Amino acid sequence: MTMKATDPGAFRAQTPVLFDRASDFIARNVFERPTLVLDLARVEVQYDALKAGLGDASIHYAVKANPDARIIAALLAKGSHFDCASRAEIELCLSQGARADQISFGNTIKRATDIAFAASKGISLLAADAPEELEKIAAHAPDARVYLRVIVENSQADWPLSRKFGAAGGHVLSLLEQGRALGLSMVGLSFHVGSQTRKSVYWGPVLDQIAKVWENAQQAGFELGLLNIGGGFPAFYGEAVDAPTNYAADVIRQVRARFGDVQIIAEPGRGMVAEAGHIVAEVLLVARKSPLDAHRWVFLDIGKFSGLAETMDEAIRYEFVTAKDGSDTGPCILAGPSCDSADVLYEKTPVQLPKSLASGDRIIVRNCGAYTTTYASIGFNGFPPLDVVVL
Amino acid sequence: MTMKATDPGAFRAQTPVLFDRASDFIARNVFERPTLVLDLARVEVQYDALKAGLGDASIHYAVKANPDARIIAALLAKGSHFDCASRAEIELCLSQGARADQISFGNTIKRATDIAFAASKGISLLAADAPEELEKIAAHAPDARVYLRVIVENSQADWPLSRKFGAAGGHVLSLLEQGRALGLSMVGLSFHVGSQTRKSVYWGPVLDQIAKVWENAQQAGFELGLLNIGGGFPAFYGEAVDAPTNYAADVIRQVRARFGDVQIIAEPGRGMVAEAGHIVAEVLLVARKSPLDAHRWVFLDIGKFSGLAETMDEAIRYEFVTAKDGSDTGPCILAGPSCDSADVLYEKTPVQLPKSLASGDRIIVRNCGAYTTTYASIGFNGFPPLDVVVL
Repeated sequence: MTMKATDPGAFRAQTPVLFDRASDFIARNVFERPTLVLDLARVEVQYDALKAGLGDASIHYAVKANPDARIIAALLAKGSHFDCASRAEIELCLSQGARADQISFGNTIKRATDIAFAASKGISLLAADAPEELEKIAAHAPDARVYLRVIVENSQADWPLSRKFGAAGGHVLSLLEQGRALGLSMVGLSFHVGSQTRKSVYWGPVLDQIAKVWENAQQAGFELGLLNIGGGFPAFYGEAVDAPTNYAADVIRQVRARFGDVQIIAEPGRGMVAEAGHIVAEVLLVARKSPLDAHRWVFLDIGKFSGLAETMDEAIRYEFVTAKDGSDTGPCILAGPSCDSADVLYEKTPVQLPKSLASGDRIIVRNCGAYTTTYASIGFNGFPPLDVVVL
Repeated sequence: MTMKATDPGAFRAQTPVLFDRASDFIARNVFERPTLVLDLARVEVQYDALKAGLGDASIHYAVKANPDARIIAALLAKGSHFDCASRAEIELCLSQGARADQISFGNTIKRATDIAFAASKGISLLAADAPEELEKIAAHAPDARVYLRVIVENSQADWPLSRKFGAAGGHVLSLLEQGRALGLSMVGLSFHVGSQTRKSVYWGPVLDQIAKVWENAQQAGFELGLLNIGGGFPAFYGEAVDAPTNYAADVIRQVRARFGDVQIIAEPGRGMVAEAGHIVAEVLLVARKSPLDAHRWVFLDIGKFSGLAETMDEAIRYEFVTAKDGSDTGPCILAGPSCDSADVLYEKTPVQLPKSLASGDRIIVRNCGAYTTTYASIGFNGFPPLDVVVL
């Protein structure tokens, strides 16, 4: 962390006060390189808001969204459980005091030795979506309780999922049979509506798909008791999203209407931490390719390879705040600082920024608490990873 | 680095010998996680091959391609100069003994304090492509020798450049005038044909574009003496590329035919180091979404966020080697180990891999010495950065 306190007055003038602790901290400090400022209290507020809607569904925070140990510790104190993508994430949660029964190993692609590691720590709840994965689990974690991930078609998420994860619905019965034959406890199903699903009503068609698979399994004699509804809980990036408690409550209402009194697990990641942090960055250069160009190119000291990976295909569109907001704006193509031509953030849909924006100006990227810190490269083009300040 | 020596015989049987030192080392060792094995002697051979073709053009190795200090030191001993993208890369080259006059600062997007840093170290050769950048250089490095980067249209490269870098040709004269008015020494032009330009004949149309801009500048009274031809020198990824000496010699012949007796700088990066290294990885899971699927999904322990960033848009298509090569193959979608749906390597154009490929099998990704190590994330999903062994 490289920052120093300064005269608050001087920086209030440059950076609009946004009525949150992270923004306030940014306004009162100088930063020498791109820094995520994250307010832990805001994460706790969000946990409470989601929990209020989710009711007796248990929250397994998706650690990959932001694996800062202070976040894990704070959520653990709140009673959260954790969904881990890797051995390292499991070790992190254990190191913060999480019990084995508070941890699920939700990656459907696991190294055999990592399955054995999880089992050795007493972690028993694992995901799978393929015959070979069931064989690995049976061999290395024979006491596992396994939920099968099912592919969801036609997600309405802003960051829709590829077909990478999940078995086709028609394949689930044979996987359940295989798992049972291998001696595994096949406890339920999981799915993912797609990251950043902005409206709870978008869940309906997806839940219908899963409910059919669930019914087929029940009719075939499999007594499933666990439904892992994954993530998808949205953050505010400028487009309207449902408020967290209402959103979560409506999702649970829709789930109960179809699945009755099952045990529900939810895995918010983005929806838990994104709004708790902002990245403070700097404009390095404003240029036009020729004087007649309609668009300016605005180059920041942070890019696709140093924290803003989710700008890939312009899927997640962050909000930007500058001290010059309110003055005349024009369309800008936004790019990162590296010598890589792919390090362009928004080009297909330009961003409106003040016409007076210039090199050296501060720019704040709003609601960046999720999928930024650990997604930064270790040293792309010599640029260091994102700096982090946790309040 | 986590590896241990083992009985070479046992692993020769698993991994075909590929007649290079990196492959031989891979065949004789066990690796616990994805590892780039890079042969320094192969880099030196490549330097000699490129230098034989480039003649009196000076080589400024594009440090960003692989900033391993051992590569910098080896190339420095060969007489190479260095093109740096950032202050950290400059510090690296200086730490290995490079003189200031062997270093260029080729990023057109520079922080003002980094320009001042370069100047304080005696580095005087800088790139620019915009009025604001010229102002920053004039303010912080008034003795700089500046070359202007020009946009190239219609590249035939495999990894074509966006319009991110360079001024339009018609904008160059006004930039030269501005630079002169600011008291800067405007020494020449630069361009980039696009990374992985497989054939030297593809350079012709690009050189024609730049030659027009060059002539206009000369006619307007600017005595340019330096042409920085950038990179674009290809590596072998399975599709035919010209051999390095012939390729470089033909590029220089085409440059001389248009620009006469100018000073030429070339910036090979990929073309210098890619073929010197291979990544040894492991298959974690082979699965079909349903038993009827034509394609298998093959999940590796390395992905887009842990070293193979250049698979973005399937632009760079690596070659894969397994111990089962030669047996029946089928089309596979290749994906990384993370819980991120975007972590898919090749899907639009599947990869042919042995039908018997299974979890636990070793897979070698060929010619990965460039744009892999520092492009890996610091801890995406808890997965560590790429391990590196330099021979």
